[in-house]
Amino acid sequence: MATILKGATVVEALDERLAAEVEELKARGIEPTLAILRVGERGDDISYERGATRRAEKVGVAVRQITLPETSATEELLAAIAKLNADASVHGVLMFRPLPKHIDEELVRNALVPQKDIDGITDLSLAGVFADTGKGFAPCTPSACMEILDYFDIELRGKKAVVIGRSLVVGKPVAMMLLARHATVSIAHSRTENLPAVVREADVVVACVGRAKMVGAEHLRPGQIVIDVGINVAADGTLAGDVDTDAARDIVAAITPVPGGVGTVTTSVLIKHVVEAAQKATR
Amino acid sequence: MATILKGATVVEALDERLAAEVEELKARGIEPTLAILRVGERGDDISYERGATRRAEKVGVAVRQITLPETSATEELLAAIAKLNADASVHGVLMFRPLPKHIDEELVRNALVPQKDIDGITDLSLAGVFADTGKGFAPCTPSACMEILDYFDIELRGKKAVVIGRSLVVGKPVAMMLLARHATVSIAHSRTENLPAVVREADVVVACVGRAKMVGAEHLRPGQIVIDVGINVAADGTLAGDVDTDAARDIVAAITPVPGGVGTVTTSVLIKHVVEAAQKATR
Repeated sequence: MATILKGATVVEALDERLAAEVEELKARGIEPTLAILRVGERGDDISYERGATRRAEKVGVAVRQITLPETSATEELLAAIAKLNADASVHGVLMFRPLPKHIDEELVRNALVPQKDIDGITDLSLAGVFADTGKGFAPCTPSACMEILDYFDIELRGKKAVVIGRSLVVGKPVAMMLLARHATVSIAHSRTENLPAVVREADVVVACVGRAKMVGAEHLRPGQIVIDVGINVAADGTLAGDVDTDAARDIVAAITPVPGGVGTVTTSVLIKHVVEAAQKATR
Repeated sequence: MATILKGATVVEALDERLAAEVEELKARGIEPTLAILRVGERGDDISYERGATRRAEKVGVAVRQITLPETSATEELLAAIAKLNADASVHGVLMFRPLPKHIDEELVRNALVPQKDIDGITDLSLAGVFADTGKGFAPCTPSACMEILDYFDIELRGKKAVVIGRSLVVGKPVAMMLLARHATVSIAHSRTENLPAVVREADVVVACVGRAKMVGAEHLRPGQIVIDVGINVAADGTLAGDVDTDAARDIVAAITPVPGGVGTVTTSVLIKHVVEAAQKATR
């Protein structure tokens, strides 16, 4: 039976460390602050905002909510971001996307200064991930994958890692982050020939395709570590990862659950980035 | 015996196409122009400048040489770049690096507008390669690898490509470019365990480590296409690629020679980028 790599365990350790770091910052008169910029009243955004706020407050990070009406123009968003850029008391900015269609999203997201770009949405943050320069921040989901691998002391150096999926928010950045840790990284996707054989070769599998249970017994072998990024609604209405967990559990060495795996860690990573941004800004 | 994928054949076809496109631009009153910005009098730079100028003139692209003394300050370079950015008659800028140590290279290279960044040195061009948005340009060497694969009609979709080397000028960008063409891409490097087995699995091998003849018979198998990016001086003083060409020739399906392979195509790709920049600027 596979070890279940529970997100909650990682979060507990991370939150404890963050609370201590926040205390240190506050002793120096700095209150690490996250600004959440929301346009409109989408339910998903509001529930994520609520979760992030709760998690931030738990470790002592302040949250400021800025909500703009759905009808806001590009210029109004640019003005809101310019204000947050200039405000030294704000250390990180989370902006929900997609933005309403009439807004120039590329222009707006790149208006944020990389120092406050705690969810890695600017081109400069992406370049930082690609070049491994530490400029800006990586997006939170791939960072959460790395956080889990680190917490459970998974050896990466020289090992074979396969990333299934090549999105700009997860697949590509996690591939670069694994590479920076000296893994031999393969990026597979919908066009990959003989995917089961490619995945079976990996020591570490990161599944981020967004298709319920598409990684099954035929892709897996004993000894593998599996990070399941997918959160999909399966045919029967239940939540399912990209991996068929029931099948995987009998084969691999360790796997993250869905729900309760990568997703759980993502919010804590967001808060971690705010704390890091505050530390860097005031060093 | 392997087919030798000669750079000269690719260059001939490319130059012919470029000459026709330049003629079209000139008929519309546009003279595609490359500015070469050199700091100091390094021999390598001067000889590359001479080669690029000759190649540009051959297809009708104008070249403007800007040479600054080695003692120039960061501000003087920034001023030179600002002038080139603002000059609508300049379509592409090649700036030799590394710059002298007293200059803030990161600041200077990112001062160039991505539209004129024909050698992919700015962070925004890198982000464009990573995100596959077509913003800016990819560096010329990985682009030359793709040019060769395209010219010889090498199938990439679904195929396994292994890139040996993870530099920001070749390995990482060529991996992203192969991925954009739907190859399953693995990035191997000095820390990869059992490199020969990893490389033997590939249909397409791109060697860009910068170590003479480090890829030998044990890494290769029949049917492979090998792109050898390395240009190294071997122990006996001769030029050698990253691949042991003599050994490879008896095994693989096709290989680029060194010299006369990727390096030969790189300069033509630089000129191609200038022509593309002129086309985009005047569309």
